[in-house]
Amino acid sequence: MTYCVGMLVKDGLVMMADTRTNAGVDNISMYRKLHILAEGEDRLIVALTAGNLSVTQLVISMLAEGLPARSDGDPCRRLGDVPSMFRAAQLVGEAVAHAREDVRAALEAEKISSGISMLLGGRVGDGPLKLYLIYGEGNFIECMTDQPFLQIGETKYGKPILDRALAWDTPMDEAVKVGLISFDSTIRSNLAVGRPIDVIAIPADASRRTIRRRIEADDPYFNDLSARWSMLLNESRATIPAPPFLGDL
Amino acid sequence: MTYCVGMLVKDGLVMMADTRTNAGVDNISMYRKLHILAEGEDRLIVALTAGNLSVTQLVISMLAEGLPARSDGDPCRRLGDVPSMFRAAQLVGEAVAHAREDVRAALEAEKISSGISMLLGGRVGDGPLKLYLIYGEGNFIECMTDQPFLQIGETKYGKPILDRALAWDTPMDEAVKVGLISFDSTIRSNLAVGRPIDVIAIPADASRRTIRRRIEADDPYFNDLSARWSMLLNESRATIPAPPFLGDL
Repeated sequence: MTYCVGMLVKDGLVMMADTRTNAGVDNISMYRKLHILAEGEDRLIVALTAGNLSVTQLVISMLAEGLPARSDGDPCRRLGDVPSMFRAAQLVGEAVAHAREDVRAALEAEKISSGISMLLGGRVGDGPLKLYLIYGEGNFIECMTDQPFLQIGETKYGKPILDRALAWDTPMDEAVKVGLISFDSTIRSNLAVGRPIDVIAIPADASRRTIRRRIEADDPYFNDLSARWSMLLNESRATIPAPPFLGDL
Repeated sequence: MTYCVGMLVKDGLVMMADTRTNAGVDNISMYRKLHILAEGEDRLIVALTAGNLSVTQLVISMLAEGLPARSDGDPCRRLGDVPSMFRAAQLVGEAVAHAREDVRAALEAEKISSGISMLLGGRVGDGPLKLYLIYGEGNFIECMTDQPFLQIGETKYGKPILDRALAWDTPMDEAVKVGLISFDSTIRSNLAVGRPIDVIAIPADASRRTIRRRIEADDPYFNDLSARWSMLLNESRATIPAPPFLGDL
């Protein structure tokens, strides 16, 4: 499995992905799931991928080569050329649908899921930062301010802290911290998600630099965050009064 | 959906179930999922149920009537008669397998899942308290001291706090509190789980009384626990240093 989260707050966009891939529990590997799909003076387009690895790799490769021209002559068939993040999401959705079409029958015959999902985020030109969740059928939804995050993969363990702590006006460094706590909860409860964690943080102010970081298995900040969070949870729990209905239990 | 948890610690057994049942999001009802299957001077057998409501009700009714006699003449076909919790788990497993057999083909034809799962806990005679997870096929596993809890239903949101906070030597009142925090996290992140929550706490010392409680939608203790936990999580998060690699973000 996989855990990826994208957080779109007022000050910027943060995207994080783990790197553990497994085919059964006896075949665990490390694969990068954070992909820079297009990068240049006028754009930065990032994808996080979850699901069947052969299908996600196919999508990334198809996008890198550019999608075949269409009969209506649409020239924007590369992410390096699309005029907006919305058009980028459409192109990626199209690639996802094509890639699954290629392999679905063969995989389904073996009862292997061809399902994938992606988080697509970034900026094109002077447009605002955007974040999309692209489903395995190629349709997509956009992240909005009421719930300023989207998740894919093993989403449930790490959702409570996002639900509680993340808002549109959460500062970006706090969003990164909340995201890492969300990963810590997931990693602790699910073996199929593991470090390293790839992080990219893109400020809304385009004049500020984008931060990229791989949080390795021995990262001292993450270790400290994990230990502190565990201790704080236990201390917090201890301060809550015992249930009054237990009487003399 | 449903969320149920059973916690078997040194001092006793705690079982908790929510009461929300839904067939689609536009058909939400309240059904008791904590069932006292047998109760007497020498026994207390409790089940928590998750999955297809018609199947779980069928199982409970079959167990109440007693399973048909077998050709090998086994007389222990009622939970009121079984000589141990292990035999209780076997009988419940048999009922589950029969119940699904009855309805599976009809439901699968409509692509409706007949899947269920159950937590079965309690004590028979002078035996120790036991806790089992019974799968939809009728097989089961027993709760052991290394991980002194079992969950069914929407298990993931509420698992991190159990993983961190619950151990074999956790006092029983603390176990109840941890269980309620686990429910709070689940309810906050998933509409398909909701109050009231039914709780039963059975002390290992059989001379002490069993506590039964329904935590209603307006229960002041749960409201206080929920508000405190939210506040404590936010305070805890605030004390963790910001990620050092963000620089001037």
